[in-house]
Amino acid sequence: MRMTARPENAHQARLLKLLRDDGPRSRAELGDVVRLSRSKLATELDRLVELGLVEGAGLAASRGGRRSAIVRLSPALRFVAFDIGATSIDVAVLGGELDVLGHVSEECDVRLGATVVLDRALDLLGKLRDEGLIPQVHGTGIGVPGPVSFRDGMPVVPPIMPGWDRFPVRDAIGQELGCPVLVDNDVNIMALGELHAGPARQVDDFLLVKIGTGIGCGIVVDGTIYRGVSGSAGDIGHIRIDDDGPVCACGNAGCLEAYFGGAALARDALAAARDGRSAHLAERLEHAGALNAADVADALGAGDPEALRLVREGGRHVGQVLAGLVSFFNPGLVIISGGVAGLGHTLLAEIRSVVYRRSAPLATGNLPIVLTELPGTAGVIGAGRLISDHVFSTSS
Amino acid sequence: MRMTARPENAHQARLLKLLRDDGPRSRAELGDVVRLSRSKLATELDRLVELGLVEGAGLAASRGGRRSAIVRLSPALRFVAFDIGATSIDVAVLGGELDVLGHVSEECDVRLGATVVLDRALDLLGKLRDEGLIPQVHGTGIGVPGPVSFRDGMPVVPPIMPGWDRFPVRDAIGQELGCPVLVDNDVNIMALGELHAGPARQVDDFLLVKIGTGIGCGIVVDGTIYRGVSGSAGDIGHIRIDDDGPVCACGNAGCLEAYFGGAALARDALAAARDGRSAHLAERLEHAGALNAADVADALGAGDPEALRLVREGGRHVGQVLAGLVSFFNPGLVIISGGVAGLGHTLLAEIRSVVYRRSAPLATGNLPIVLTELPGTAGVIGAGRLISDHVFSTSS
Repeated sequence: MRMTARPENAHQARLLKLLRDDGPRSRAELGDVVRLSRSKLATELDRLVELGLVEGAGLAASRGGRRSAIVRLSPALRFVAFDIGATSIDVAVLGGELDVLGHVSEECDVRLGATVVLDRALDLLGKLRDEGLIPQVHGTGIGVPGPVSFRDGMPVVPPIMPGWDRFPVRDAIGQELGCPVLVDNDVNIMALGELHAGPARQVDDFLLVKIGTGIGCGIVVDGTIYRGVSGSAGDIGHIRIDDDGPVCACGNAGCLEAYFGGAALARDALAAARDGRSAHLAERLEHAGALNAADVADALGAGDPEALRLVREGGRHVGQVLAGLVSFFNPGLVIISGGVAGLGHTLLAEIRSVVYRRSAPLATGNLPIVLTELPGTAGVIGAGRLISDHVFSTSS
Repeated sequence: MRMTARPENAHQARLLKLLRDDGPRSRAELGDVVRLSRSKLATELDRLVELGLVEGAGLAASRGGRRSAIVRLSPALRFVAFDIGATSIDVAVLGGELDVLGHVSEECDVRLGATVVLDRALDLLGKLRDEGLIPQVHGTGIGVPGPVSFRDGMPVVPPIMPGWDRFPVRDAIGQELGCPVLVDNDVNIMALGELHAGPARQVDDFLLVKIGTGIGCGIVVDGTIYRGVSGSAGDIGHIRIDDDGPVCACGNAGCLEAYFGGAALARDALAAARDGRSAHLAERLEHAGALNAADVADALGAGDPEALRLVREGGRHVGQVLAGLVSFFNPGLVIISGGVAGLGHTLLAEIRSVVYRRSAPLATGNLPIVLTELPGTAGVIGAGRLISDHVFSTSS
């Protein structure tokens, strides 16, 4: 397989990222942004065309003089994204501007281990390949549901991923696909997806709170993922709410995840169905044999008071933890995402209420707290962003 | 007054910061670090000598060939530091390497307002000037005990600083001293002091927890102060510990500062003295008419069991909040500082015990939690670091 071309200097890298983030632009517009002389800009763009990364796309409308030529990223550019969750795999093929060209998803238990799960992901990619979507892969980004050594490209002691500890995910997939690969935590890649395509585009410092089976947080500082010194930053699921709360899977009592998240909500919904507090949930249980966040959302939509209570309580507990983090981090935006975020505005209203009441006033003065606008796609777009940042830079 | 000379390009800025942080160096050693050609390095250093920022200081030992000339920052460089606390003013004069040449301190209530307090600070500076320590001021760094708009150089809605809201501290002192001035939160400048002269020198990402009258946190990301979008990052004093805890001055219940900090400790010590739980504290109270953290430290040293209980409880509450922040931020180091940190290893042991038990295991694997090695000087050194970073850079 042909090696992926890379930019040769910082100007070329900047031009590629501009074209990725803002779409096709005239040479005149690019010149305004990058502040290169006309001849220097022409040299760099011509070189990017030679490398097969950029191509001409007609002439722009006149700005008063000669019409300027439009350039765009090569339509042949392809990034692959694997978003591996606790119970699902998403595989997508993206163009150079991180537009989703194809996206398949299936249920898969991450506890089946690295070999099985990655084989499934490659099978799914094969389906997209069969559709002719992938002339060449220029890079692959991978998210996994646990802590990652970003430098080594592998999960490290991931609590819910037996069989994955120090499995060389980056190197294995790199060998398979013959392209650059980067691996990161799934919450971090969701935050990158929001940075690329959500309301966070305009914000330097923000938090993405993912409420799925567990609860995690992506931290963006100055437009870059903050990972902490051992890659575990944002691991907020076991922050203490109360010393005498429910016992958590981690062994401590009163952690956030012992109160809320997909797992805790399923537990509480089951109890409510069984002890007669919710006829609606009892009916769903009888029908399906188990309950999850979607059942609670359904009960909520039907006006079930017990479901309402569960969601409000959950929002209050998320808000209690988030209020502290907002005081500490003073973000410009908080985005709520993940499967349980499907509980929507009831959950959001409760989170907002607690954060706005309990955080430092200066930190909440202009703080939007919103639901994601990218449910289902933030992860794969973020995985594309991760690897394209790498491929579109000079250092390897 | 003569304008302060500034470096003219990034190479000169880098050389000045190296000489500030590492002290006098031979031209050969500097060449190894900055990777400039011998002639280019000579040009830049000669220009810094012309600007009066650098001077020659003899010859280095031979490294095999001709002996290389040693250069150092000009001994005439002077930075002024004002560290304004809730109840004290520290004023220091620093040399180019941020060595403390003179340091005076006095009690002063910040609630007297900006004009009175800044006049007192200038009076204290006058004393140092009379000692002949200040041929010329090249820049002044100022810390104040509240939130600051760093861009505007002024406090913004500071809760414990009546009369300071939007007072133009930077511009007023700049006009008075005729030099560049920067203003920041006092906890941030302590963190910068640790970054310059404490164990944090080797660490990119760390937290400095200041336990004084209140409790605040300085956040360093990648060697730079993280201030948040409105300058209030690190405002951790009102993070919730319990919904049904003591009522806090902020109006909420169960905030960290309602449990611990200088003010809460004085309150609890007074109660212990009055209701007969501590004969030692009762005796101090009778003697002094009031109690503070130093009295509790004294009682602790004398083996008073009630003092021990108060300090352990306080450490536990700090630890509960810090455990969450360590999980979230995954720092490489936590430093405990401030007046109450004088309670020493009893306090530290309790904080460590809670953090190591409750934080995410990956985040505490290699996490040192230590007492400051710079009690009393971190603030003024940090204020010098703040302004010298500015003066030793090209952009103004």
